Amino acid sequence: MPMICLSDFEAYAKKHLPKTTWEFFAGGADECCTRDDNLLAYKRIRFRPRVLRDMSVIDTRTILLGTEISFPVGIAPTGFHQLACSDGEKSTARAAEAMNTCYITSTYSTCTVEEIAAAAPNGFRWFQLYIHRNRALSEGLVRRAEAAGFQGLVLTADLPYVGKRRDDIRNNFQLPPHMTVKNFEGVFEGILTKEDADLAMRHGVQGIIVSNHGGRQLDGGPATIDSLIEIVDTVQDRVEVYLDGGIRTGSDVLKALALGAKCVFIGRPALWGLTYKGEEGLREVLQILHDEFRLSMALTGCQNVSEIGRNLVQFSKL
Amino acid sequence: MPMICLSDFEAYAKKHLPKTTWEFFAGGADECCTRDDNLLAYKRIRFRPRVLRDMSVIDTRTILLGTEISFPVGIAPTGFHQLACSDGEKSTARAAEAMNTCYITSTYSTCTVEEIAAAAPNGFRWFQLYIHRNRALSEGLVRRAEAAGFQGLVLTADLPYVGKRRDDIRNNFQLPPHMTVKNFEGVFEGILTKEDADLAMRHGVQGIIVSNHGGRQLDGGPATIDSLIEIVDTVQDRVEVYLDGGIRTGSDVLKALALGAKCVFIGRPALWGLTYKGEEGLREVLQILHDEFRLSMALTGCQNVSEIGRNLVQFSKL
Amino acid sequence: MPMICLSDFEAYAKKHLPKTTWEFFAGGADECCTRDDNLLAYKRIRFRPRVLRDMSVIDTRTILLGTEISFPVGIAPTGFHQLACSDGEKSTARAAEAMNTCYITSTYSTCTVEEIAAAAPNGFRWFQLYIHRNRALSEGLVRRAEAAGFQGLVLTADLPYVGKRRDDIRNNFQLPPHMTVKNFEGVFEGILTKEDADLAMRHGVQGIIVSNHGGRQLDGGPATIDSLIEIVDTVQDRVEVYLDGGIRTGSDVLKALALGAKCVFIGRPALWGLTYKGEEGLREVLQILHDEFRLSMALTGCQNVSEIGRNLVQFSKL
Amino acid sequence: MPMICLSDFEAYAKKHLPKTTWEFFAGGADECCTRDDNLLAYKRIRFRPRVLRDMSVIDTRTILLGTEISFPVGIAPTGFHQLACSDGEKSTARAAEAMNTCYITSTYSTCTVEEIAAAAPNGFRWFQLYIHRNRALSEGLVRRAEAAGFQGLVLTADLPYVGKRRDDIRNNFQLPPHMTVKNFEGVFEGILTKEDADLAMRHGVQGIIVSNHGGRQLDGGPATIDSLIEIVDTVQDRVEVYLDGGIRTGSDVLKALALGAKCVFIGRPALWGLTYKGEEGLREVLQILHDEFRLSMALTGCQNVSEIGRNLVQFSKL
Repeated sequence: MPMICLSDFEAYAKKHLPKTTWEFFAGGADECCTRDDNLLAYKRIRFRPRVLRDMSVIDTRTILLGTEISFPVGIAPTGFHQLACSDGEKSTARAAEAMNTCYITSTYSTCTVEEIAAAAPNGFRWFQLYIHRNRALSEGLVRRAEAAGFQGLVLTADLPYVGKRRDDIRNNFQLPPHMTVKNFEGVFEGILTKEDADLAMRHGVQGIIVSNHGGRQLDGGPATIDSLIEIVDTVQDRVEVYLDGGIRTGSDVLKALALGAKCVFIGRPALWGLTYKGEEGLREVLQILHDEFRLSMALTGCQNVSEIGRNLVQFSKL
Repeated sequence: MPMICLSDFEAYAKKHLPKTTWEFFAGGADECCTRDDNLLAYKRIRFRPRVLRDMSVIDTRTILLGTEISFPVGIAPTGFHQLACSDGEKSTARAAEAMNTCYITSTYSTCTVEEIAAAAPNGFRWFQLYIHRNRALSEGLVRRAEAAGFQGLVLTADLPYVGKRRDDIRNNFQLPPHMTVKNFEGVFEGILTKEDADLAMRHGVQGIIVSNHGGRQLDGGPATIDSLIEIVDTVQDRVEVYLDGGIRTGSDVLKALALGAKCVFIGRPALWGLTYKGEEGLREVLQILHDEFRLSMALTGCQNVSEIGRNLVQFSKL
Repeated sequence: MPMICLSDFEAYAKKHLPKTTWEFFAGGADECCTRDDNLLAYKRIRFRPRVLRDMSVIDTRTILLGTEISFPVGIAPTGFHQLACSDGEKSTARAAEAMNTCYITSTYSTCTVEEIAAAAPNGFRWFQLYIHRNRALSEGLVRRAEAAGFQGLVLTADLPYVGKRRDDIRNNFQLPPHMTVKNFEGVFEGILTKEDADLAMRHGVQGIIVSNHGGRQLDGGPATIDSLIEIVDTVQDRVEVYLDGGIRTGSDVLKALALGAKCVFIGRPALWGLTYKGEEGLREVLQILHDEFRLSMALTGCQNVSEIGRNLVQFSKL
Repeated sequence: MPMICLSDFEAYAKKHLPKTTWEFFAGGADECCTRDDNLLAYKRIRFRPRVLRDMSVIDTRTILLGTEISFPVGIAPTGFHQLACSDGEKSTARAAEAMNTCYITSTYSTCTVEEIAAAAPNGFRWFQLYIHRNRALSEGLVRRAEAAGFQGLVLTADLPYVGKRRDDIRNNFQLPPHMTVKNFEGVFEGILTKEDADLAMRHGVQGIIVSNHGGRQLDGGPATIDSLIEIVDTVQDRVEVYLDGGIRTGSDVLKALALGAKCVFIGRPALWGLTYKGEEGLREVLQILHDEFRLSMALTGCQNVSEIGRNLVQFSKL
């Protein structure tokens, strides 16, 4: 079966992963309203395509906190990549390096930060930290990631409570026993309101990731693309704003950028790619998103990312 | 089958109750639009979660007309609990007492108020009264409930007409012959408009329950969560406002409190719990709602119920 | 099978009528959007029920152009009743007389006006006229109906073009050969805009029926309940306004009256009743609507039709 | 099977065409949201029918850039008609000539412009041009079409990128080897925004076709009927505005004209007609649209196309 779009990878993963793992990856909190709305919200946004332009050259590159990446799609922090492929986060790191984009490594990685760094020594990586009550433990993790060349620290703001994923409880989901969980521009992850965006900036962050953890934590919260405008309007270009959640096509990426995101990050689609063929599978996922994003730029008349602005979209009449 | 959420209890009850009883419990008036909208209306409300807060301590307690309960979910008045479990309302009273919350006993109980009081002598209970044309009968009921320690009287405002539940008519639903139907802060139940809220306050009530009787009376009326704002804005903190109808998760409870309810009451979910395992089943239902409500508070940044306000929610763009 | 609601009669008719006849009765123009929206539009209207009222006496009577009827539901003009029952319009006339309501007899009746009048000599009837190019023919019809005691003339405004009902074309629908088509306050039928309402009043009508012929003529026109407000606001009580299309429950009737209709008329439900048991079947249909309408009045706090006003309803948030 | 409406032709084509060809004709970009919304958007528009008018004569004729056609429906440029019938674009030209309407011939035709002209020497035709980088090639094509009697040139504004049609990629869709791709009032095709409409007028076009290529290029763009108002309001009668996309009934045509289109063009329905019976099949498709359009005019009170204005429609409450 040729892999044409991200849904093909999803179908593959659903078919080939153990049911318990699939449901762990796919699960959302409670009734999964927010998980599903993350995707549906993109359908309510319509492009206003411009056509009378020279589209002979299209440049998808962008710059994240000073570092250039090949296109504005990175890897969001998700845990336990060895559940998807045997090489786990090492494959993820290699794919992100090969595609020249940013990989946010989760605290809940099944490879150590040193292993990840060794696997892709030239990769652009940030480290995501859940702040433990044991501050010494957190500090140790941060130092190791910094030493391993991670260039940014992503602080997850909305924990330590875990959302209620019904399937995981039913499945009594637990990691296989051999898996263990293994630093620093500051980026805050999980902001969804202007009040918290203000507070985060007062704490000196350089960027904000608009995220609801794939709808896995609080059910009934807004789709991230719906929250994006409120955050973007609040920060007024003082810090960079990113988004994760619900990205499935290149035009979703373009919509997020039109509404003010500097870059988006993919979570579940990365896991589907790893499930399909490890590093190569994830590269395919990223390549498809790259090609679709570039085509969407072409078809809406954007030569480079600086030309993508809010007048490119409108909200659907329906 | 582990019971993870209230839907699991619903599925159990549907499978194990006689069809006629299930349909009596589940039925709504006419085409069941209002019954169904009671649930759907919660999906149109979105949280605005705050995340940058210390969530090490979360307090779910609240106070109803001067009496503290462990969390803002009580038992709404529904009739004929012996259709769900052999001990009937005695089980209901014990579960509510054990969970330290309020139980509104229906006029149409299959245990006497004295039996109910004896089963859970320390429980916090109100008595719901349909006002009979025979005023002496009503007065006698009220005196007995008062003597049995009931602390509040809930007056049902919108009767004596019974909604048209098609399944009950088809089933020729009647109570088994051995069942009989068996006091006093004033609370008015069934108010859905600002005009009636004003009138109720002029009659000196201390609280108002926004209710449409689970959509069993008038089809085409508003979902209770949609009516809540109008009532809350009208009473302006002069009396407490409660709500029943459509509560299925802890985040539904949080939404109702955010829109101004002091407490919510559950009807059908209590019957499902009783059907599952009598007192123990209902305690499980209440415990799940407690845990989900506490988690929703944590994930939206509310340390206690006084921090839950209207800025916590917005209406969905869809 | 007990007949509880109008849907039961619909199911019966669908099962027992020849497919061609069922499709002729059920069919709408083109894609049937307007036919279906006639019903769906009622779901977007919500009651604002008042409950703190004395409901010991409820009076459903109303007056149509000076004649009292038992409740505000009459029989809309539909053709070919012998397709539903052997006695055809004679049964219809008897049922309407028995229920003391108004029967608008169609030009396309399969009984003569004299036969209809003889069948129910005390009935309150109007005659609906399609204006033929042959004015003498029209005039003759009107004189006969007048002589037969018909008290009103309903002029159908929007013909002689016939809507495109796909099933009828596929079925090559034709009347059985033995059926023939057989008069005077002025009422104009088929008005949907304020411009036409103004024009009709300038022609001296006493009433206007807001109608789209059950969605059988123009597909893509508004639901009649959606058009009603525009017409009511235009005529400002100078003439009476009625409505047909989409009435399936007593609460639909109440919504139409709340939005300003003096009376509603039923089309397809009358045919279903005739199909079920002739005169008796149609009486059952009318009795169900009467009882449901009366219950809806009780549950919303209306003692008589003069208390039914626009503050009784609001449009749904969805 | 009698062919009653355009859906019947669609069903026939789906059943009889090779799957690969069917999917090539039917396919939309990515998730096909825009392709499907092209149709759905018409359902959100409601007529405001006028009925009190003399409808004895109805005139469907209109004039396109000075040339009269029998009704405002032409043939949109689509490629590869030999995939639908052996005579390819020669059949298309004959059907358009017979129905006296405009046929926009695609650059990707499988007959030469000379063959097309010879097949229907009196037909009214425009030639659609994708502008090649090889300007000499384009110029040559234009000169040949002009010599063959084509009266207009349609410039396609939004290429040379091809939308991502998943089924075509899966099918590895390619033209059979024997097929080859074979000029001049100026019309710009593919405009969807007021900015581009302004720009096009500054370039001196005489008309604008509001088009999204049947949703085959950019997914997530607006339905053409939704874009129409923006364009019409911008051009203010300085140039003619046309539309393609989603036309399936005569009332769709009427809605487009009410919102300001001078004429609409059909794409896929023309291919279905050709598939059914070549020239004759396409004539049937056009005849059905003509008859439905005329009936819609009659039922809304429009005697001729000059009476069709924006007050004929409103947007649905839903």
